[in-house]
Amino acid sequence: MQALEERIRKDGVIKEGNVLKVDSFLNHRMDIELINEIGREFRRLFPDKSINKILTIEASGIGIACITAQYFGCPVVFAKKTQSINIDGEVYSTQIKSFTHNRTYDVIVKKAFLSPDDNILIIDDFLANGCALLGLIDIVKGSGASIAGAGIVIEKGWQNGGELVRSRGIRVESLAIVESMSVENGIVFRHEQTV
Amino acid sequence: MQALEERIRKDGVIKEGNVLKVDSFLNHRMDIELINEIGREFRRLFPDKSINKILTIEASGIGIACITAQYFGCPVVFAKKTQSINIDGEVYSTQIKSFTHNRTYDVIVKKAFLSPDDNILIIDDFLANGCALLGLIDIVKGSGASIAGAGIVIEKGWQNGGELVRSRGIRVESLAIVESMSVENGIVFRHEQTV
Repeated sequence: MQALEERIRKDGVIKEGNVLKVDSFLNHRMDIELINEIGREFRRLFPDKSINKILTIEASGIGIACITAQYFGCPVVFAKKTQSINIDGEVYSTQIKSFTHNRTYDVIVKKAFLSPDDNILIIDDFLANGCALLGLIDIVKGSGASIAGAGIVIEKGWQNGGELVRSRGIRVESLAIVESMSVENGIVFRHEQTV
Repeated sequence: MQALEERIRKDGVIKEGNVLKVDSFLNHRMDIELINEIGREFRRLFPDKSINKILTIEASGIGIACITAQYFGCPVVFAKKTQSINIDGEVYSTQIKSFTHNRTYDVIVKKAFLSPDDNILIIDDFLANGCALLGLIDIVKGSGASIAGAGIVIEKGWQNGGELVRSRGIRVESLAIVESMSVENGIVFRHEQTV
């Protein structure tokens, strides 16, 4: 997605440790116009009319999922990272390791909010090692719902999450795949790669 | 807001300990159509054209803030609860006690994302004891930005957060104010109250 790639190149900040900071437009300050374009693009990529629910994970996936859901006319369910004493009843749960925060989260979705009749699109802001996405896939599979695919805003192409998920037969559409990046040479997107 | 009150009465679940669960449409599964109506109502209540930024707090405020921001044509900034090793540079910070989770969070907003030129609308899903809202107000005041007001989806009218914030001269618009509730007698909204 050209507007997204241009924005990443303009405002993304490459930090030591292969960190790409996009917090000025995607996951701290959120550019709602750009996220609207992102939502429209996800609809174009997943035209399947049977998609009836979007699943994401708190926190930074939620805004993107909500804007995107408007193009699908469907509700959003977000997986919760912390065990809240307000969550009652039965939940689907999995564990997700966050390398960013260097800890493992229990992630839960209330069983009442997923059904075997659902055809679910998973939305998230980043795909790197795939832990969060694989966790969400586990939760959906546990519910018996179908997975229409996963819509990712930015995939780190040099990490193996994309390959891991695609090798399980899940369709993954990433709007920007960063193939490599460095402070010296900037960002190379996958489609720009020279062999 | 009538559609919201009807929805709370229909799908809200009153639990022991004065807990009102609205996770089937507001803060776990999100009804995007309803949240669109909520966003439109916030715009009606805050018509001020100088509002140029919406501030909220993760996690459940984010989706509501993003949908609402479309009616204001402005970006969203969300305050972060966990200290991420990905946050660099200077931040505004405050501490917020969560009674739901029985812990105190450090809450931060990157300084670059708030400016003295901003006129900020604060959006959140719940107002009860006011801790989260007062924390966000502290952060905005620290930045020198103006506060246009606070838009709250559900206020628990029997707790003192609304009074605390309004007594500081901040305009608070709550789309539904629950004055009292009990498993036996259900929900009474403030405007229905008999003296």
